[in-house]
Amino acid sequence: MLLKQDKKLLFIGDSVTDCDRAKPHGEGLFQALGNGYVSIVDAFLQSSYPELGIRVVNKGISGNTVRDLKERWTEDVIEQNPDWVSIMIGINDVWRQYDSPLMKEIHVYIDEYKETLTQLVETTKSSAENIILMTPFYIEPNKSDAMRHTMDQYGAEVKKIAEEHGCIFVNTQEAFNEVMKSLYPANIAWDRVHPNTTGHTVLAKAFLRAVEFDWHR
Amino acid sequence: MLLKQDKKLLFIGDSVTDCDRAKPHGEGLFQALGNGYVSIVDAFLQSSYPELGIRVVNKGISGNTVRDLKERWTEDVIEQNPDWVSIMIGINDVWRQYDSPLMKEIHVYIDEYKETLTQLVETTKSSAENIILMTPFYIEPNKSDAMRHTMDQYGAEVKKIAEEHGCIFVNTQEAFNEVMKSLYPANIAWDRVHPNTTGHTVLAKAFLRAVEFDWHR
Amino acid sequence: MLLKQDKKLLFIGDSVTDCDRAKPHGEGLFQALGNGYVSIVDAFLQSSYPELGIRVVNKGISGNTVRDLKERWTEDVIEQNPDWVSIMIGINDVWRQYDSPLMKEIHVYIDEYKETLTQLVETTKSSAENIILMTPFYIEPNKSDAMRHTMDQYGAEVKKIAEEHGCIFVNTQEAFNEVMKSLYPANIAWDRVHPNTTGHTVLAKAFLRAVEFDWHR
Amino acid sequence: MLLKQDKKLLFIGDSVTDCDRAKPHGEGLFQALGNGYVSIVDAFLQSSYPELGIRVVNKGISGNTVRDLKERWTEDVIEQNPDWVSIMIGINDVWRQYDSPLMKEIHVYIDEYKETLTQLVETTKSSAENIILMTPFYIEPNKSDAMRHTMDQYGAEVKKIAEEHGCIFVNTQEAFNEVMKSLYPANIAWDRVHPNTTGHTVLAKAFLRAVEFDWHR
Amino acid sequence: MLLKQDKKLLFIGDSVTDCDRAKPHGEGLFQALGNGYVSIVDAFLQSSYPELGIRVVNKGISGNTVRDLKERWTEDVIEQNPDWVSIMIGINDVWRQYDSPLMKEIHVYIDEYKETLTQLVETTKSSAENIILMTPFYIEPNKSDAMRHTMDQYGAEVKKIAEEHGCIFVNTQEAFNEVMKSLYPANIAWDRVHPNTTGHTVLAKAFLRAVEFDWHR
Amino acid sequence: MLLKQDKKLLFIGDSVTDCDRAKPHGEGLFQALGNGYVSIVDAFLQSSYPELGIRVVNKGISGNTVRDLKERWTEDVIEQNPDWVSIMIGINDVWRQYDSPLMKEIHVYIDEYKETLTQLVETTKSSAENIILMTPFYIEPNKSDAMRHTMDQYGAEVKKIAEEHGCIFVNTQEAFNEVMKSLYPANIAWDRVHPNTTGHTVLAKAFLRAVEFDWHR
Amino acid sequence: MLLKQDKKLLFIGDSVTDCDRAKPHGEGLFQALGNGYVSIVDAFLQSSYPELGIRVVNKGISGNTVRDLKERWTEDVIEQNPDWVSIMIGINDVWRQYDSPLMKEIHVYIDEYKETLTQLVETTKSSAENIILMTPFYIEPNKSDAMRHTMDQYGAEVKKIAEEHGCIFVNTQEAFNEVMKSLYPANIAWDRVHPNTTGHTVLAKAFLRAVEFDWHR
Amino acid sequence: MLLKQDKKLLFIGDSVTDCDRAKPHGEGLFQALGNGYVSIVDAFLQSSYPELGIRVVNKGISGNTVRDLKERWTEDVIEQNPDWVSIMIGINDVWRQYDSPLMKEIHVYIDEYKETLTQLVETTKSSAENIILMTPFYIEPNKSDAMRHTMDQYGAEVKKIAEEHGCIFVNTQEAFNEVMKSLYPANIAWDRVHPNTTGHTVLAKAFLRAVEFDWHR
Repeated sequence: MLLKQDKKLLFIGDSVTDCDRAKPHGEGLFQALGNGYVSIVDAFLQSSYPELGIRVVNKGISGNTVRDLKERWTEDVIEQNPDWVSIMIGINDVWRQYDSPLMKEIHVYIDEYKETLTQLVETTKSSAENIILMTPFYIEPNKSDAMRHTMDQYGAEVKKIAEEHGCIFVNTQEAFNEVMKSLYPANIAWDRVHPNTTGHTVLAKAFLRAVEFDWHR
Repeated sequence: MLLKQDKKLLFIGDSVTDCDRAKPHGEGLFQALGNGYVSIVDAFLQSSYPELGIRVVNKGISGNTVRDLKERWTEDVIEQNPDWVSIMIGINDVWRQYDSPLMKEIHVYIDEYKETLTQLVETTKSSAENIILMTPFYIEPNKSDAMRHTMDQYGAEVKKIAEEHGCIFVNTQEAFNEVMKSLYPANIAWDRVHPNTTGHTVLAKAFLRAVEFDWHR
Repeated sequence: MLLKQDKKLLFIGDSVTDCDRAKPHGEGLFQALGNGYVSIVDAFLQSSYPELGIRVVNKGISGNTVRDLKERWTEDVIEQNPDWVSIMIGINDVWRQYDSPLMKEIHVYIDEYKETLTQLVETTKSSAENIILMTPFYIEPNKSDAMRHTMDQYGAEVKKIAEEHGCIFVNTQEAFNEVMKSLYPANIAWDRVHPNTTGHTVLAKAFLRAVEFDWHR
Repeated sequence: MLLKQDKKLLFIGDSVTDCDRAKPHGEGLFQALGNGYVSIVDAFLQSSYPELGIRVVNKGISGNTVRDLKERWTEDVIEQNPDWVSIMIGINDVWRQYDSPLMKEIHVYIDEYKETLTQLVETTKSSAENIILMTPFYIEPNKSDAMRHTMDQYGAEVKKIAEEHGCIFVNTQEAFNEVMKSLYPANIAWDRVHPNTTGHTVLAKAFLRAVEFDWHR
Repeated sequence: MLLKQDKKLLFIGDSVTDCDRAKPHGEGLFQALGNGYVSIVDAFLQSSYPELGIRVVNKGISGNTVRDLKERWTEDVIEQNPDWVSIMIGINDVWRQYDSPLMKEIHVYIDEYKETLTQLVETTKSSAENIILMTPFYIEPNKSDAMRHTMDQYGAEVKKIAEEHGCIFVNTQEAFNEVMKSLYPANIAWDRVHPNTTGHTVLAKAFLRAVEFDWHR
Repeated sequence: MLLKQDKKLLFIGDSVTDCDRAKPHGEGLFQALGNGYVSIVDAFLQSSYPELGIRVVNKGISGNTVRDLKERWTEDVIEQNPDWVSIMIGINDVWRQYDSPLMKEIHVYIDEYKETLTQLVETTKSSAENIILMTPFYIEPNKSDAMRHTMDQYGAEVKKIAEEHGCIFVNTQEAFNEVMKSLYPANIAWDRVHPNTTGHTVLAKAFLRAVEFDWHR
Repeated sequence: MLLKQDKKLLFIGDSVTDCDRAKPHGEGLFQALGNGYVSIVDAFLQSSYPELGIRVVNKGISGNTVRDLKERWTEDVIEQNPDWVSIMIGINDVWRQYDSPLMKEIHVYIDEYKETLTQLVETTKSSAENIILMTPFYIEPNKSDAMRHTMDQYGAEVKKIAEEHGCIFVNTQEAFNEVMKSLYPANIAWDRVHPNTTGHTVLAKAFLRAVEFDWHR
Repeated sequence: MLLKQDKKLLFIGDSVTDCDRAKPHGEGLFQALGNGYVSIVDAFLQSSYPELGIRVVNKGISGNTVRDLKERWTEDVIEQNPDWVSIMIGINDVWRQYDSPLMKEIHVYIDEYKETLTQLVETTKSSAENIILMTPFYIEPNKSDAMRHTMDQYGAEVKKIAEEHGCIFVNTQEAFNEVMKSLYPANIAWDRVHPNTTGHTVLAKAFLRAVEFDWHR
């Protein structure tokens, strides 16, 4: 597995990452990592590699866009000194364009998204050993759906940034596409965004595969 | 307008009709009609035709399918002696097939749906002067979407039953299709089922037009 | 209709406008506009003219008098850059004189009312395209009732200000007078001030007529 | 004073009597008599005539009409063996005709009111030494107001019954009329029905005068 | 009656005065005067002399001693510009010596009590027309009881101060002594300090008599 | 110590025994014994004689009189098969005579008290090895106080019954008298009945001494 | 994988299985399977084999022993018609012997445990295709610890029953032993019984391995 | 007994000391000392030596380590001017190393522990007459258990500091070891740290013996 002894792995993102994690620290006793994919990833790391002592921190905040991440990046990422940083952002950047179309000042369009995410990656590269970029996603199988279409464009930007900066890339949309061959979206997330445990497991598995987790330990 | 002096108009259906109405009576002081389309219809009837004294009752219950309506029809409809009965049912009949596909015993497939709804209409015709049948709907513009496709089939059955039994017919799906030309579904209902006030107003307008409400009073 | 493509319409007032709207923004998802006439107006605008993208904001605060509006006018109106501003104020200015007659320092008498409202209108005219002035009202049919009499005097001032400054004028008292021919006050508002949905629909219809809303769309 | 050593005085009525009294007993420690006129009457009896040991019980229930009293009369009055019974009923009998005009089955019209109240008085006369009849009231000074007018008719029936059956009569409407010469209704009760402490003191004083309470003890 | 047209009467004291009054204003709608003797006094003034417009304010705060009153005297008394000021303080000054004997720094002994109360009276005399001094009390009939004995000493100081400064004097202890001839303390106050409605009526009557209230209005 | 290996000790009484114990069992995990003297007694037994395995059960119920104990004696005592039964009852039997003097039907006078308690002791003697009778008490040092005087009479009956039936006798009043030489009642119990932890420790010590508990283990 | 198309898998047990699952059905929307190992197993089955449609039901109830399972076996297992039944019971059977040693009537000793579990397995074999027996566990590494020792004995019985009846066997204690080589118990469960997400993942992995789940799908 | 007339005894520590005591003062009416060993110690001092007037203050705060005590020592100890100071700290210093092994920055290792505690003792010696040092403890009988082993090392440091500085020493671990001969840990504390009343009584007895409390008073 890519994660080694005593490393610190920090997750940051929006409500899909947050999942009611403890504020402000995002780690500790009593379900402090929330009840989403971060908690599942941690539980597999701790139970399969208990000897490695990999420390997981969750800094997701519900409703965040990449613009919000930028504002709190120094405090919530840089000052935490993580060895690994995993970023999944963009859902709200897109969603607000579709559920609140008239409030244009809270929309984060693709140019700002791309530029800001690039900037965060560059800022982080010098201090963190590894960066993992997870695409945003929309649990909607129809590629012609307007919001799915936009989300795919944002995901494509994430892929480009990952390639250009040597980040590990996790294509969450593709992972959901796979299960959507058999499962209707309402079976994973009533609003097509906030997954149930099945959906969070899709995310956790995609993440763990990207870090070459050994399932047979 | 079709509704005349001193008539009693009873609405029955699922959560879209219920909207937190007072249980068990479904009428009275203090927002007893809930906060959905039933309340809007009532408010327009009372404010535009205050002299008519049209009495509105809401008997919607969240989660109901047509199978549930059948069980409570005698108590909640027949024994209320309404002059008008408006029925909007079928969303959960379809939705459970998509969000809980493995629990087949709670699915209401189209044959049972059609048969049961027909039976309710026939039971009611002798006592109530008028029956209004509103289609179920799905706030999803893509006709190829699996659940939308099924919902359209259920809606087609409603139309047939209305025609065969001389009921007033309200095509709610069509009404939503119209606004969906400009508004993305997430702007009306996060889960594409439970509408915000804009969506409930779409329903109320479709209803009021069907009863030839005069907007200029 | 007078409201055109992409315009921003801001409502300000007291509890009748507030109706539990989201603080401080007064717009957004999840019933942020409250559950009164502002929400009904918005729902009709969005459902009948979805292509226009008219943005509605609710800045009502319960208990406010015109003196309170003055204090927050810069932040809550001017800095919001609305194209349209709708003001309904005065109920508490009058009511406190009748329910708390001994606390004279919280009464806003007619001279201060007139002067302050005029000042707010003048301040706003340069930036907003249109101002709508709605009278305060009292759901009491007896014109000789002391409080109704005073309220009528305040309403008359609103009319004068509207005429002098070219504002659109909405006579809410007259709208209520019309329905009170058939409905007793307790059927609209137990305290003759805070309307039920029927009463809020009376207000919304009066507003929509004033902006030449087309009910047949 | 008319009330003598060791007598038991039972009050019955609607929400004006109830005032959050302890259910079901309506007496005992910890504000068990509620916070309305019954509690004030009791406090004056206990503090001015502590040696008499007059036992006060409150059996008011919010929302009750005379039809409701009839149903619970055996259990809540006769079986309590009171020496004195004070009845104030009728407000809801009238109010529902005005705030819920379409729900005619819950209205108690004047013939039923008169007949039922008479019947209760007659039933009680054999066991209780004294019956006090208090009129219902409406804190509205305008005698031409429709609901005030109806309430006055009900009050007139109470007076007649009192005279015919030798009951002590308390004209609560007249007591309120007196203070309404100086106080506007909203200063006593926002909904013109549920009095504040000033209003309950008006009731308590009217009651105490009727039983020839000595204020100078 | 001694209180004349348009006068403002301010009460200050501890929990017996406070009784859950609205903070910070201590006047206004909705039981703002609390549910103790202040509210009863107000209700009698408003209902018997409605034409006088006497304004009552309650500035009691639970747990206060005379030392606490001193700290807030400017803000809570002087700046309110009352015409009449009624002070009842001292219960906690004494009680803490008996229920928390080891926490000597929160005890207010008799010299400090006398000196501070005198100072407050002198400060107030120039601005307020009348000052009413009510003794503290202990609902314990046994004069040899240690705490009752101390309370009597504090009450004696109040009497002296009233005489020396021409204040109206209300002997609350004596008023309770009278009813204690017939009622055991537990029937008025479980802890012998916080009275039930009967006990608050004892206080209100003593106050009203001191201001020559006419009970027959 | 008198309590031997594996014995079951059941306490029964009123609120002083109850102290928020778990209902209905009165034993088990998580403070099931409540927070009064029963819990202190148990904690000393378990910590000083852990090897004895003495099982403690709390069957106190707030507000109970001896009349209430009688009604539930079979279920709550006999069917529990205790080896030891400790009874402390009588406070409410007396208190209601003083705080609710007019509700005579809930008073338990001394003849009924004596007779009922005797009957309970006799019923229990055949099955339980030992019975402990604790007197009721009143934390009032003045023997001339009316309620203290009555309580002493009830305590004297307990003593007599204990002597006649060979029960272990615990004089709780005497135990409180001892500490009242130094502590004022309000320092132990605001209402002179419900003790703080100091007061419950007085009770627990008196109990433990009666069963010859060895403090030096 | 051993689980095939359209099979129904029912879990039953105590609080470790329950984990706040929906009562009474134990399946459906909104985290109805609780937040423990059952939910993790389901999420892996749904996300890795979405096409199989395996239906998972959770019938765990907190605090249950095998004696409790027996009482509800017909209703909660047999009448559910599961194809697979997974049983994990015994923790409370043992724990009560250690945390409530004196309440012997709620202890389930090893003979009753063995006999009852055998009986449940035999009852179920005719209707369910497969039975999975999971051992109870204690997250305590010291084999000499009294409770761990007893738990191991109960686990050994489970193993024997599984072998004798051809059930799939899951040794949860062994799975925990493995991670306890690196993790101290307090890092998995504060009370050594109720696991955090890491502990539940240990259980889920042990289960999934027993049914030959393919981790690479 | 070592504690003399009018002395002030202050306890400080973590959650075992805190036990829901009143914040910030930690003394006064209404269970202000919490419900743990501090409250039991106080209750025995007050009930057995009521004439001494020993004042007890509880300054425990849940979760504290010796590092936290240092930060608040001036405010919470020195400025309180206690005559006696009792310190029990170290449980969290050790526990976090075992339940949160990866969060090394919140661990307080033995060198820092020893040094800081020494410093607090030295700071306090000049002002307080007596210091009592209580060891931290772990309710685990197995001395080879890793956390128990560490806790014993911390306890040994406490003993050394007590000897070097002439403090009274209380060996709480030894006191628990004694009862653990008969009681399994789960019978005293589910998490082996937070004791039930039996466990707190173990602590209180150890403390009282150290100050030569006379159990026979």
